[in-house]
Amino acid sequence: MTRQELIDNIRRKQSFLCVGLDTDLQKVPEHLLTEEDPIFAFNKAIIDATAPYCVAYKPNLAFYEAFGVKGLMAFEKTVKYLKQHYPDQFIIADAKRGDIGNTSKMYARTFFGEYDVDALTVAPYMGEDSVTPFIDSPQTPSGSPLKGENCSPSSGEGRGRNHWVILLALTSNKGSLDFQLTEDKNGERLFEKVIRKSREWGNDENLMYVVGATRGELFQDIRRVAPKAFLLVPGIGAQGGSLEEVCRYGMIEDIGLLVNSSRAIIYADKSENFAQVAAEKAKEVALQMAELLNSK
Amino acid sequence: MTRQELIDNIRRKQSFLCVGLDTDLQKVPEHLLTEEDPIFAFNKAIIDATAPYCVAYKPNLAFYEAFGVKGLMAFEKTVKYLKQHYPDQFIIADAKRGDIGNTSKMYARTFFGEYDVDALTVAPYMGEDSVTPFIDSPQTPSGSPLKGENCSPSSGEGRGRNHWVILLALTSNKGSLDFQLTEDKNGERLFEKVIRKSREWGNDENLMYVVGATRGELFQDIRRVAPKAFLLVPGIGAQGGSLEEVCRYGMIEDIGLLVNSSRAIIYADKSENFAQVAAEKAKEVALQMAELLNSK
Repeated sequence: MTRQELIDNIRRKQSFLCVGLDTDLQKVPEHLLTEEDPIFAFNKAIIDATAPYCVAYKPNLAFYEAFGVKGLMAFEKTVKYLKQHYPDQFIIADAKRGDIGNTSKMYARTFFGEYDVDALTVAPYMGEDSVTPFIDSPQTPSGSPLKGENCSPSSGEGRGRNHWVILLALTSNKGSLDFQLTEDKNGERLFEKVIRKSREWGNDENLMYVVGATRGELFQDIRRVAPKAFLLVPGIGAQGGSLEEVCRYGMIEDIGLLVNSSRAIIYADKSENFAQVAAEKAKEVALQMAELLNSK
Repeated sequence: MTRQELIDNIRRKQSFLCVGLDTDLQKVPEHLLTEEDPIFAFNKAIIDATAPYCVAYKPNLAFYEAFGVKGLMAFEKTVKYLKQHYPDQFIIADAKRGDIGNTSKMYARTFFGEYDVDALTVAPYMGEDSVTPFIDSPQTPSGSPLKGENCSPSSGEGRGRNHWVILLALTSNKGSLDFQLTEDKNGERLFEKVIRKSREWGNDENLMYVVGATRGELFQDIRRVAPKAFLLVPGIGAQGGSLEEVCRYGMIEDIGLLVNSSRAIIYADKSENFAQVAAEKAKEVALQMAELLNSK
Protein backbone atom coordinates (compact mmCIF):
# COMPACT_ATOMS: atom_id res chain seq x y z
CA MET A 1 0.00 0.00 0.00
CA THR A 2 1.32 3.44 -0.87
CA ARG A 3 1.36 6.41 1.47
CA GLN A 4 -1.40 8.09 -0.52
CA GLU A 5 -3.62 5.00 -0.40
CA LEU A 6 -3.17 4.83 3.35
CA ILE A 7 -4.07 8.50 3.74
CA ASP A 8 -7.13 8.03 1.53
CA ASN A 9 -8.29 5.06 3.62
CA ILE A 10 -7.90 7.07 6.81
CA ARG A 11 -9.92 9.99 5.42
CA ARG A 12 -12.63 7.73 4.06
CA LYS A 13 -13.00 5.72 7.28
CA GLN A 14 -12.33 8.69 9.57
CA SER A 15 -10.05 6.43 11.59
CA PHE A 16 -6.32 5.89 11.96
CA LEU A 17 -6.73 2.94 14.29
CA CYS A 18 -4.51 -0.11 14.03
CA VAL A 19 -5.76 -3.20 15.86
CA GLY A 20 -2.98 -5.29 17.40
CA LEU A 21 -3.55 -9.00 16.99
CA ASP A 22 -1.54 -10.18 20.03
CA THR A 23 -3.47 -13.41 20.14
CA ASP A 24 -2.71 -15.48 23.23
CA LEU A 25 -4.49 -18.80 23.73
CA GLN A 26 -4.42 -18.19 27.47
CA LYS A 27 -6.59 -15.11 26.95
CA VAL A 28 -9.05 -15.98 24.17
CA PRO A 29 -12.64 -16.95 25.10
CA GLU A 30 -12.83 -20.56 26.23
CA HIS A 31 -15.43 -21.66 23.71
CA LEU A 32 -12.90 -21.06 20.91
CA LEU A 33 -10.42 -23.58 22.27
CA THR A 34 -12.34 -26.46 20.72
CA GLU A 35 -11.95 -24.96 17.22
CA GLU A 36 -9.46 -26.62 14.89
CA ASP A 37 -7.38 -23.45 14.76
CA PRO A 38 -8.44 -21.33 17.74
CA ILE A 39 -5.89 -18.57 17.04
CA PHE A 40 -7.19 -18.03 13.52
CA ALA A 41 -10.82 -18.41 14.64
CA PHE A 42 -10.26 -15.64 17.18
CA ASN A 43 -8.47 -13.39 14.66
CA LYS A 44 -11.13 -13.91 12.00
CA ALA A 45 -13.92 -12.98 14.38
CA ILE A 46 -12.02 -9.92 15.65
CA ILE A 47 -11.20 -8.80 12.09
CA ASP A 48 -14.76 -9.23 10.78
CA ALA A 49 -16.10 -7.24 13.72
CA THR A 50 -13.54 -4.42 13.87
CA ALA A 51 -12.64 -3.87 10.19
CA PRO A 52 -15.12 -0.99 9.69
CA TYR A 53 -13.40 0.99 12.44
CA CYS A 54 -9.72 0.56 11.63
CA VAL A 55 -7.28 0.88 8.74
CA ALA A 56 -4.55 -1.53 9.86
CA TYR A 57 -3.89 -4.78 11.68
CA LYS A 58 -0.70 -5.64 13.48
CA PRO A 59 -0.11 -9.26 14.47
CA ASN A 60 2.87 -9.51 16.83
CA LEU A 61 4.96 -12.52 15.80
CA ALA A 62 5.96 -13.38 19.38
CA PHE A 63 2.44 -14.58 20.07
CA TYR A 64 2.37 -16.83 16.99
CA GLU A 65 5.89 -18.21 17.42
CA ALA A 66 5.02 -19.20 20.98
CA PHE A 67 2.69 -21.82 19.51
CA GLY A 68 5.31 -23.22 17.17
CA VAL A 69 4.34 -24.50 13.77
CA LYS A 70 0.60 -24.16 14.51
CA GLY A 71 1.06 -20.56 15.54
CA LEU A 72 2.97 -19.76 12.37
CA MET A 73 0.26 -21.33 10.25
CA ALA A 74 -2.35 -19.24 12.06
CA PHE A 75 -0.29 -16.12 11.31
CA GLU A 76 -0.11 -17.04 7.64
CA LYS A 77 -3.85 -17.74 7.46
CA THR A 78 -4.59 -14.43 9.14
CA VAL A 79 -2.50 -12.49 6.62
CA LYS A 80 -4.10 -14.31 3.70
CA TYR A 81 -7.59 -13.73 5.10
CA LEU A 82 -6.90 -10.01 5.45
CA LYS A 83 -5.50 -9.70 1.92
CA GLN A 84 -8.42 -11.60 0.42
CA HIS A 85 -11.33 -10.08 2.31
CA TYR A 86 -10.02 -6.68 3.41
CA PRO A 87 -7.53 -5.54 0.77
CA ASP A 88 -7.72 -1.96 2.05
CA GLN A 89 -6.27 -2.93 5.43
CA PHE A 90 -2.57 -2.16 6.00
CA ILE A 91 -0.89 -5.28 7.41
CA ILE A 92 2.01 -4.87 9.80
CA ALA A 93 4.08 -7.85 10.92
CA ASP A 94 5.36 -6.74 14.31
CA ALA A 95 8.52 -8.80 14.49
CA LYS A 96 11.21 -6.28 15.46
CA ARG A 97 13.79 -8.06 13.33
CA GLY A 98 17.24 -6.82 12.33
CA ASP A 99 20.51 -8.68 11.68
CA ILE A 100 23.64 -8.38 9.53
CA GLY A 101 22.97 -7.67 5.85
CA ASN A 102 22.81 -11.19 4.42
CA THR A 103 20.60 -12.32 7.31
CA SER A 104 18.24 -9.34 7.15
CA LYS A 105 17.82 -10.27 3.49
CA MET A 106 16.51 -13.66 4.59
CA TYR A 107 14.00 -11.99 6.91
CA ALA A 108 12.97 -9.61 4.12
CA ARG A 109 12.38 -12.58 1.85
CA THR A 110 10.20 -14.19 4.52
CA PHE A 111 8.02 -11.24 5.41
CA PHE A 112 7.85 -9.38 2.10
CA GLY A 113 8.37 -12.30 -0.30
CA GLU A 114 6.47 -15.16 1.33
CA TYR A 115 3.90 -13.48 3.55
CA ASP A 116 3.83 -10.26 1.51
CA VAL A 117 2.72 -8.03 4.38
CA ASP A 118 2.77 -4.25 3.89
CA ALA A 119 5.17 -3.47 6.70
CA LEU A 120 7.60 -4.98 9.16
CA THR A 121 8.86 -3.51 12.42
CA VAL A 122 12.67 -3.43 12.56
CA ALA A 123 15.10 -2.79 15.43
CA PRO A 124 17.76 -0.17 14.60
CA TYR A 125 20.65 -1.18 16.89
CA MET A 126 22.72 -2.84 14.15
CA GLY A 127 22.51 0.14 11.80
CA GLU A 128 22.23 0.68 8.08
CA ASP A 129 22.98 -2.70 6.53
CA SER A 130 20.58 -4.39 8.97
CA VAL A 131 17.74 -2.09 7.85
CA THR A 132 18.19 -1.42 4.13
CA PRO A 133 17.47 -4.99 2.95
CA PHE A 134 13.91 -4.41 4.15
CA ILE A 135 13.48 -1.14 2.32
CA ASP A 136 11.76 -1.73 -0.93
CA SER A 137 11.13 1.72 -2.30
CA PRO A 138 8.30 2.22 -4.79
CA GLN A 139 10.82 4.38 -6.67
CA THR A 140 12.97 1.27 -7.21
CA PRO A 141 12.51 0.25 -10.85
CA SER A 142 11.18 -3.29 -10.90
CA GLY A 143 13.87 -5.79 -11.81
CA SER A 144 16.63 -3.79 -10.12
CA PRO A 145 19.05 -5.81 -7.99
CA LEU A 146 17.57 -4.45 -4.75
CA LYS A 147 14.06 -5.43 -5.64
CA GLY A 148 15.16 -8.76 -7.01
CA GLU A 149 16.94 -9.68 -3.83
CA ASN A 150 14.20 -8.56 -1.51
CA CYS A 151 11.38 -10.49 -3.05
CA SER A 152 11.36 -14.23 -3.28
CA PRO A 153 11.57 -14.84 -7.00
CA SER A 154 9.93 -18.23 -6.68
CA SER A 155 6.71 -17.07 -5.07
CA GLY A 156 6.03 -14.37 -7.60
CA GLU A 157 4.15 -12.55 -4.85
CA GLY A 158 4.88 -9.10 -3.54
CA ARG A 159 6.03 -7.69 -6.84
CA GLY A 160 3.43 -4.98 -7.03
CA ARG A 161 3.25 -4.36 -3.33
CA ASN A 162 4.86 -1.39 -1.67
CA HIS A 163 6.82 -2.47 1.38
CA TRP A 164 7.48 -0.43 4.49
CA VAL A 165 10.01 -0.60 7.27
CA ILE A 166 8.69 0.62 10.63
CA LEU A 167 11.81 1.40 12.60
CA LEU A 168 11.80 1.41 16.41
CA ALA A 169 12.56 4.96 17.52
CA LEU A 170 10.99 5.76 20.89
CA THR A 171 9.13 2.80 22.32
CA SER A 172 6.30 2.84 24.86
CA ASN A 173 7.86 0.65 27.55
CA LYS A 174 9.73 1.61 30.71
CA GLY A 175 13.00 0.25 29.28
CA SER A 176 12.91 2.89 26.54
CA LEU A 177 14.50 5.20 29.14
CA ASP A 178 17.62 3.04 29.32
CA PHE A 179 19.19 3.86 25.96
CA GLN A 180 16.78 5.67 23.63
CA LEU A 181 16.94 8.98 25.50
CA THR A 182 20.73 9.00 25.90
CA GLU A 183 22.12 12.33 24.67
CA ASP A 184 25.33 12.42 22.69
CA LYS A 185 27.96 15.17 22.90
CA ASN A 186 25.88 17.43 20.64
CA GLY A 187 22.72 16.97 22.67
CA GLU A 188 21.13 14.65 20.15
CA ARG A 189 19.22 11.81 21.75
CA LEU A 190 19.56 8.28 20.41
CA PHE A 191 15.96 8.09 19.11
CA GLU A 192 16.53 11.35 17.22
CA LYS A 193 19.78 10.04 15.75
CA VAL A 194 18.04 6.83 14.67
CA ILE A 195 15.40 8.84 12.82
CA ARG A 196 17.87 11.34 11.32
CA LYS A 197 20.31 8.68 10.08
CA SER A 198 17.57 6.46 8.69
CA ARG A 199 16.34 9.32 6.48
CA GLU A 200 19.47 8.55 4.41
CA TRP A 201 18.28 4.97 3.87
CA GLY A 202 14.63 5.50 3.03
CA ASN A 203 11.93 8.13 2.76
CA ASP A 204 8.35 8.92 3.74
CA GLU A 205 7.07 6.41 1.18
CA ASN A 206 8.78 3.38 2.71
CA LEU A 207 9.84 4.27 6.23
CA MET A 208 7.73 4.84 9.36
CA TYR A 209 8.74 5.01 13.01
CA VAL A 210 7.46 3.44 16.20
CA VAL A 211 6.84 6.22 18.72
CA GLY A 212 5.13 5.32 21.98
CA ALA A 213 2.08 7.28 23.11
CA THR A 214 3.31 7.27 26.69
CA ARG A 215 5.41 10.40 26.15
CA GLY A 216 3.07 12.65 24.17
CA GLU A 217 5.16 15.83 24.52
CA LEU A 218 8.11 14.20 22.74
CA PHE A 219 6.09 14.06 19.52
CA GLN A 220 7.11 17.68 18.98
CA ASP A 221 10.76 16.63 18.92
CA ILE A 222 9.95 13.73 16.62
CA ARG A 223 8.22 16.08 14.18
CA ARG A 224 11.35 18.23 14.08
CA VAL A 225 13.38 15.33 12.60
CA ALA A 226 10.57 13.60 10.72
CA PRO A 227 8.04 16.30 9.84
CA LYS A 228 6.09 14.20 7.35
CA ALA A 229 6.73 10.58 8.32
CA PHE A 230 3.98 8.25 9.39
CA LEU A 231 4.32 7.15 13.01
CA LEU A 232 3.06 3.89 14.42
CA VAL A 233 1.97 4.69 17.95
CA PRO A 234 1.56 1.94 20.56
CA GLY A 235 0.80 2.66 24.20
CA ILE A 236 -2.82 3.82 24.00
CA GLY A 237 -5.14 1.73 26.15
CA ALA A 238 -3.48 -0.86 28.42
CA GLN A 239 -0.26 1.18 28.54
CA GLY A 240 -2.00 4.46 29.43
CA GLY A 241 -1.07 6.93 26.66
CA SER A 242 -3.37 9.80 25.68
CA LEU A 243 -4.84 9.94 22.18
CA GLU A 244 -5.52 13.68 22.43
CA GLU A 245 -1.94 14.44 23.36
CA VAL A 246 -0.54 12.28 20.58
CA CYS A 247 -2.71 14.10 18.05
CA ARG A 248 -1.99 17.56 19.46
CA TYR A 249 1.76 17.11 19.04
CA GLY A 250 2.03 14.44 16.37
CA MET A 251 -0.71 14.90 13.77
CA ILE A 252 0.20 16.57 10.46
CA GLU A 253 -1.73 17.63 7.40
CA ASP A 254 -1.44 14.12 5.95
CA ILE A 255 -2.42 12.76 9.38
CA GLY A 256 0.88 10.86 9.76
CA LEU A 257 -0.38 8.62 12.57
CA LEU A 258 -1.40 5.02 12.95
CA VAL A 259 -2.44 4.52 16.55
CA ASN A 260 -2.37 0.96 17.78
CA SER A 261 -4.49 -0.68 20.42
CA SER A 262 -4.22 -4.38 21.18
CA ARG A 263 -5.31 -5.69 24.56
CA ALA A 264 -7.89 -2.96 25.28
CA ILE A 265 -9.81 -4.00 22.16
CA ILE A 266 -9.26 -7.69 21.54
CA TYR A 267 -9.53 -8.80 25.18
CA ALA A 268 -12.26 -6.37 26.23
CA ASP A 269 -14.58 -9.33 26.77
CA LYS A 270 -14.08 -13.05 27.25
CA SER A 271 -17.66 -14.24 26.65
CA GLU A 272 -19.18 -15.55 23.41
CA ASN A 273 -19.89 -11.90 22.72
CA PHE A 274 -16.18 -11.02 22.56
CA ALA A 275 -16.11 -9.91 18.92
CA GLN A 276 -19.09 -7.60 19.33
CA VAL A 277 -17.55 -6.00 22.41
CA ALA A 278 -14.25 -5.62 20.54
CA ALA A 279 -16.15 -3.87 17.74
CA GLU A 280 -17.74 -1.49 20.25
CA LYS A 281 -14.35 -0.66 21.75
CA ALA A 282 -12.84 -0.11 18.31
CA LYS A 283 -15.80 2.06 17.35
CA GLU A 284 -15.36 4.18 20.50
CA VAL A 285 -11.73 4.87 19.58
CA ALA A 286 -12.66 5.52 15.94
CA LEU A 287 -15.28 8.08 16.97
CA GLN A 288 -12.68 9.89 19.09
CA MET A 289 -10.35 9.79 16.09
CA ALA A 290 -13.01 11.21 13.76
CA GLU A 291 -13.50 14.13 16.15
CA LEU A 292 -9.77 14.76 16.34
CA LEU A 293 -9.47 14.58 12.55
CA ASN A 294 -12.27 17.08 12.11
CA SER A 295 -11.00 19.51 14.73
CA LYS A 296 -7.59 19.64 13.03
CA MET B 1 24.55 -25.37 30.70
CA THR B 2 26.35 -23.51 33.48
CA ARG B 3 29.35 -21.26 33.00
CA GLN B 4 31.60 -23.82 34.69
CA GLU B 5 30.36 -26.64 32.45
CA LEU B 6 31.04 -24.52 29.40
CA ILE B 7 34.57 -23.71 30.60
CA ASP B 8 35.19 -27.40 31.33
CA ASN B 9 34.04 -28.37 27.84
CA ILE B 10 36.35 -25.78 26.29
CA ARG B 11 39.36 -27.01 28.29
CA ARG B 12 38.62 -30.63 27.54
CA LYS B 13 38.14 -30.10 23.81
CA GLN B 14 40.78 -27.37 23.54
CA SER B 15 38.37 -25.39 21.42
CA PHE B 16 36.05 -22.44 21.92
CA LEU B 17 34.58 -22.69 18.44
CA CYS B 18 30.88 -22.16 17.79
CA VAL B 19 29.62 -23.37 14.42
CA GLY B 20 26.91 -21.17 12.93
CA LEU B 21 24.14 -23.15 11.28
CA ASP B 22 23.00 -20.50 8.77
CA THR B 23 21.50 -23.15 6.57
CA ASP B 24 20.31 -21.78 3.23
CA LEU B 25 18.78 -24.15 0.69
CA GLN B 26 20.29 -22.05 -2.08
CA LYS B 27 23.74 -22.93 -0.77
CA VAL B 28 23.58 -26.56 0.38
CA PRO B 29 24.97 -29.30 -1.87
CA GLU B 30 22.55 -30.20 -4.61
CA HIS B 31 22.34 -33.89 -3.81
CA LEU B 32 20.67 -33.04 -0.49
CA LEU B 33 17.72 -31.31 -2.12
CA THR B 34 16.01 -34.62 -2.80
CA GLU B 35 16.00 -35.49 0.92
CA GLU B 36 12.68 -35.25 2.75
CA ASP B 37 14.07 -32.50 5.00
CA PRO B 38 17.16 -31.12 3.26
CA ILE B 39 17.78 -28.44 5.92
CA PHE B 40 17.91 -30.99 8.72
CA ALA B 41 19.88 -33.46 6.57
CA PHE B 42 22.51 -30.78 5.99
CA ASN B 43 22.62 -29.79 9.67
CA LYS B 44 22.87 -33.39 10.87
CA ALA B 45 25.78 -34.11 8.54
CA ILE B 46 27.57 -30.89 9.54
CA ILE B 47 27.00 -31.56 13.25
CA ASP B 48 28.19 -35.18 13.12
CA ALA B 49 31.31 -34.09 11.27
CA THR B 50 32.24 -30.97 13.25
CA ALA B 51 31.15 -31.85 16.82
CA PRO B 52 34.62 -33.03 17.93
CA TYR B 53 36.06 -29.59 17.12
CA CYS B 54 33.51 -27.22 18.63
CA VAL B 55 31.64 -26.58 21.87
CA ALA B 56 28.60 -24.74 20.55
CA TYR B 57 26.17 -24.51 17.64
CA LYS B 58 24.30 -21.38 16.64
CA PRO B 59 21.38 -21.74 14.23
CA ASN B 60 20.25 -18.30 13.00
CA LEU B 61 16.46 -18.23 12.99
CA ALA B 62 16.26 -16.00 9.90
CA PHE B 63 17.39 -18.89 7.73
CA TYR B 64 14.76 -21.26 9.16
CA GLU B 65 11.89 -18.75 9.14
CA ALA B 66 12.59 -18.07 5.47
CA PHE B 67 11.33 -21.58 4.74
CA GLY B 68 8.15 -21.14 6.76
CA VAL B 69 6.67 -24.04 8.66
CA LYS B 70 9.14 -26.52 7.14
CA GLY B 71 12.07 -24.36 8.18
CA LEU B 72 10.79 -24.10 11.72
CA MET B 73 10.37 -27.87 11.93
CA ALA B 74 13.95 -28.30 10.71
CA PHE B 75 15.11 -25.91 13.43
CA GLU B 76 13.24 -27.87 16.08
CA LYS B 77 14.63 -31.19 14.82
CA THR B 78 18.14 -29.76 14.83
CA VAL B 79 17.85 -28.63 18.45
CA LYS B 80 16.41 -31.99 19.50
CA TYR B 81 19.15 -33.86 17.65
CA LEU B 82 21.84 -31.81 19.37
CA LYS B 83 20.33 -32.31 22.83
CA GLN B 84 19.95 -36.03 22.31
CA HIS B 85 23.26 -36.88 20.66
CA TYR B 86 25.57 -34.08 21.78
CA PRO B 87 24.41 -32.97 25.24
CA ASP B 88 27.72 -31.21 25.88
CA GLN B 89 27.14 -28.75 23.03
CA PHE B 90 25.93 -25.28 23.97
CA ILE B 91 22.94 -24.37 21.78
CA ILE B 92 22.40 -20.74 20.82
CA ALA B 93 19.25 -19.63 19.04
CA ASP B 94 20.41 -16.57 17.14
CA ALA B 95 17.14 -14.70 16.89
CA LYS B 96 17.98 -11.17 18.10
CA ARG B 97 14.57 -10.81 19.72
CA GLY B 98 13.43 -8.10 22.13
CA ASP B 99 10.02 -6.49 22.69
CA ILE B 100 7.99 -4.94 25.50
CA GLY B 101 7.84 -7.03 28.68
CA ASN B 102 4.73 -9.10 28.10
CA THR B 103 5.83 -9.86 24.54
CA SER B 104 9.40 -10.74 25.45
CA LYS B 105 7.85 -13.20 27.90
CA MET B 106 6.17 -14.92 24.95
CA TYR B 107 9.50 -15.19 23.14
CA ALA B 108 11.16 -16.51 26.32
CA ARG B 109 8.46 -19.15 26.57
CA THR B 110 9.10 -20.16 22.97
CA PHE B 111 12.87 -20.41 23.05
CA PHE B 112 13.49 -21.50 26.64
CA GLY B 113 10.21 -23.30 27.34
CA GLU B 114 9.41 -25.05 24.07
CA TYR B 115 12.76 -25.40 22.31
CA ASP B 116 14.78 -25.28 25.55
CA VAL B 117 17.96 -23.96 23.97
CA ASP B 118 20.80 -22.81 26.21
CA ALA B 119 20.95 -19.25 24.97
CA LEU B 120 19.15 -16.66 22.89
CA THR B 121 20.58 -13.54 21.27
CA VAL B 122 18.64 -10.42 22.28
CA ALA B 123 18.67 -6.84 20.92
CA PRO B 124 19.09 -4.19 23.64
CA TYR B 125 17.40 -1.14 22.08
CA MET B 126 14.18 -1.42 24.12
CA GLY B 127 15.99 -1.67 27.46
CA GLU B 128 15.51 -3.51 30.72
CA ASP B 129 11.98 -4.90 30.55
CA SER B 130 12.62 -6.21 27.03
CA VAL B 131 15.64 -8.19 28.27
CA THR B 132 14.87 -9.42 31.79
CA PRO B 133 12.06 -11.84 30.80
CA PHE B 134 14.78 -13.87 29.08
CA ILE B 135 17.08 -13.94 32.06
CA ASP B 136 16.55 -17.12 33.94
CA SER B 137 19.25 -17.06 36.57
CA PRO B 138 20.44 -20.34 38.02
CA GLN B 139 20.23 -18.49 41.36
CA THR B 140 16.45 -18.18 40.87
CA PRO B 141 14.85 -20.69 43.23
CA SER B 142 12.71 -23.05 41.17
CA GLY B 143 9.02 -22.22 41.53
CA SER B 144 9.63 -18.48 41.89
CA PRO B 145 7.31 -16.26 39.85
CA LEU B 146 10.07 -15.33 37.39
CA LYS B 147 10.94 -18.91 36.64
CA GLY B 148 7.28 -19.91 36.47
CA GLU B 149 6.50 -17.27 33.90
CA ASN B 150 9.54 -17.90 31.74
CA CYS B 151 9.12 -21.60 31.27
CA SER B 152 6.13 -23.11 29.62
CA PRO B 153 4.47 -24.99 32.46
CA SER B 154 2.83 -27.39 30.06
CA SER B 155 5.97 -28.72 28.44
CA GLY B 156 7.74 -29.49 31.70
CA GLU B 157 10.99 -28.98 29.80
CA GLY B 158 13.67 -26.51 30.62
CA ARG B 159 13.26 -26.68 34.37
CA GLY B 160 16.75 -27.88 35.07
CA ARG B 161 18.41 -25.99 32.27
CA ASN B 162 20.37 -22.83 32.79
CA HIS B 163 19.33 -20.17 30.31
CA TRP B 164 21.49 -17.39 28.93
CA VAL B 165 20.81 -14.09 27.26
CA ILE B 166 23.43 -13.06 24.72
CA LEU B 167 22.95 -9.33 24.36
CA LEU B 168 24.05 -7.48 21.23
CA ALA B 169 26.79 -5.05 22.26
CA LEU B 170 29.22 -4.37 19.42
CA THR B 171 28.27 -6.22 16.26
CA SER B 172 30.53 -7.22 13.38
CA ASN B 173 28.72 -5.44 10.53
CA LYS B 174 29.39 -2.08 8.94
CA GLY B 175 26.16 -0.67 10.37
CA SER B 176 27.53 -1.12 13.89
CA LEU B 177 29.26 2.24 13.34
CA ASP B 178 25.92 4.03 13.02
CA PHE B 179 24.77 3.94 16.64
CA GLN B 180 26.83 1.53 18.76
CA LEU B 181 29.92 3.77 18.90
CA THR B 182 28.01 6.99 19.64
CA GLU B 183 29.56 8.69 22.67
CA ASP B 184 27.35 10.30 25.27
CA LYS B 185 28.20 13.48 27.21
CA ASN B 186 30.48 11.55 29.57
CA GLY B 187 32.37 9.86 26.76
CA GLU B 188 30.65 6.53 27.26
CA ARG B 189 29.86 4.76 24.01
CA LEU B 190 26.48 3.11 23.48
CA PHE B 191 27.91 -0.44 23.44
CA GLU B 192 29.66 0.26 26.76
CA LYS B 193 26.47 1.64 28.25
CA VAL B 194 24.53 -1.42 27.09
CA ILE B 195 27.01 -3.68 28.84
CA ARG B 196 27.26 -1.56 31.99
CA LYS B 197 23.49 -1.18 32.42
CA SER B 198 22.79 -4.84 31.69
CA ARG B 199 25.06 -5.88 34.57
CA GLU B 200 22.20 -4.67 36.79
CA TRP B 201 19.83 -7.16 35.14
CA GLY B 202 21.97 -10.28 35.05
CA ASN B 203 25.42 -11.62 35.80
CA ASP B 204 28.25 -13.71 34.36
CA GLU B 205 26.21 -16.88 34.87
CA ASN B 206 23.32 -15.86 32.62
CA LEU B 207 24.47 -12.98 30.46
CA MET B 208 26.94 -12.92 27.57
CA TYR B 209 27.58 -10.28 24.90
CA VAL B 210 27.93 -10.31 21.14
CA VAL B 211 31.19 -8.57 20.24
CA GLY B 212 32.32 -8.67 16.63
CA ALA B 213 35.83 -9.83 15.78
CA THR B 214 36.17 -7.11 13.18
CA ARG B 215 37.37 -4.57 15.75
CA GLY B 216 39.86 -6.57 17.82
CA GLU B 217 41.37 -3.60 19.67
CA LEU B 218 37.99 -2.72 21.19
CA PHE B 219 38.05 -5.94 23.19
CA GLN B 220 40.23 -4.07 25.71
CA ASP B 221 37.43 -1.60 26.28
CA ILE B 222 34.88 -4.40 26.54
CA ARG B 223 36.99 -6.11 29.20
CA ARG B 224 37.00 -2.91 31.24
CA VAL B 225 33.18 -3.06 31.61
CA ALA B 226 32.78 -6.84 31.52
CA PRO B 227 36.01 -8.32 32.85
CA LYS B 228 34.69 -11.84 33.31
CA ALA B 229 31.75 -12.16 30.92
CA PHE B 230 31.67 -14.66 28.12
CA LEU B 231 31.65 -13.02 24.70
CA LEU B 232 30.12 -14.50 21.57
CA VAL B 233 32.36 -13.37 18.75
CA PRO B 234 31.13 -13.40 15.14
CA GLY B 235 33.13 -12.00 12.27
CA ILE B 236 35.94 -14.54 11.97
CA GLY B 237 36.14 -16.08 8.51
CA ALA B 238 33.85 -14.60 5.86
CA GLN B 239 33.76 -11.24 7.65
CA GLY B 240 37.56 -11.00 8.03
CA GLY B 241 38.23 -10.75 11.79
CA SER B 242 41.47 -12.00 13.34
CA LEU B 243 41.35 -14.82 15.90
CA GLU B 244 44.79 -13.89 17.32
CA GLU B 245 43.75 -10.31 17.93
CA VAL B 246 40.47 -11.33 19.57
CA CYS B 247 42.38 -13.64 21.93
CA ARG B 248 45.12 -11.13 22.66
CA TYR B 249 42.63 -8.51 23.84
CA GLY B 250 39.62 -10.57 24.83
CA MET B 251 40.72 -13.86 26.42
CA ILE B 252 40.60 -14.13 30.22
CA GLU B 253 41.62 -16.79 32.72
CA ASP B 254 38.25 -18.53 32.29
CA ILE B 255 38.67 -18.13 28.51
CA GLY B 256 35.50 -16.02 28.20
CA LEU B 257 35.21 -16.44 24.44
CA LEU B 258 32.99 -18.36 22.07
CA VAL B 259 34.17 -17.61 18.56
CA ASN B 260 31.65 -18.25 15.83
CA SER B 261 32.25 -19.24 12.25
CA SER B 262 29.38 -19.96 9.91
CA ARG B 263 29.88 -19.67 6.16
CA ALA B 264 33.64 -20.39 6.18
CA ILE B 265 32.95 -23.81 7.68
CA ILE B 266 29.55 -25.01 6.55
CA TYR B 267 29.86 -23.84 2.93
CA ALA B 268 33.54 -24.63 2.46
CA ASP B 269 32.57 -27.28 -0.09
CA LYS B 270 29.48 -28.00 -2.15
CA SER B 271 30.27 -31.56 -3.25
CA GLU B 272 29.11 -34.83 -1.65
CA ASN B 273 32.20 -34.39 0.51
CA PHE B 274 30.88 -31.22 2.12
CA ALA B 275 30.69 -32.53 5.68
CA GLN B 276 34.24 -33.86 5.64
CA VAL B 277 35.57 -30.56 4.29
CA ALA B 278 33.57 -28.69 6.96
CA ALA B 279 35.18 -30.94 9.58
CA GLU B 280 38.64 -30.13 8.22
CA LYS B 281 37.91 -26.40 8.34
CA ALA B 282 36.56 -26.68 11.90
CA LYS B 283 39.60 -28.73 12.90
CA GLU B 284 41.93 -26.08 11.48
CA VAL B 285 40.29 -23.40 13.59
CA ALA B 286 40.25 -25.66 16.65
CA LEU B 287 44.00 -26.33 16.30
CA GLN B 288 44.66 -22.58 16.18
CA MET B 289 42.48 -22.23 19.26
CA ALA B 290 44.36 -24.96 21.12
CA GLU B 291 47.62 -23.13 20.44
CA LEU B 292 46.18 -19.84 21.65
CA LEU B 293 44.79 -21.54 24.78
CA ASN B 294 48.16 -23.05 25.57
CA SER B 295 50.15 -19.90 24.93
CA LYS B 296 47.94 -17.97 27.37
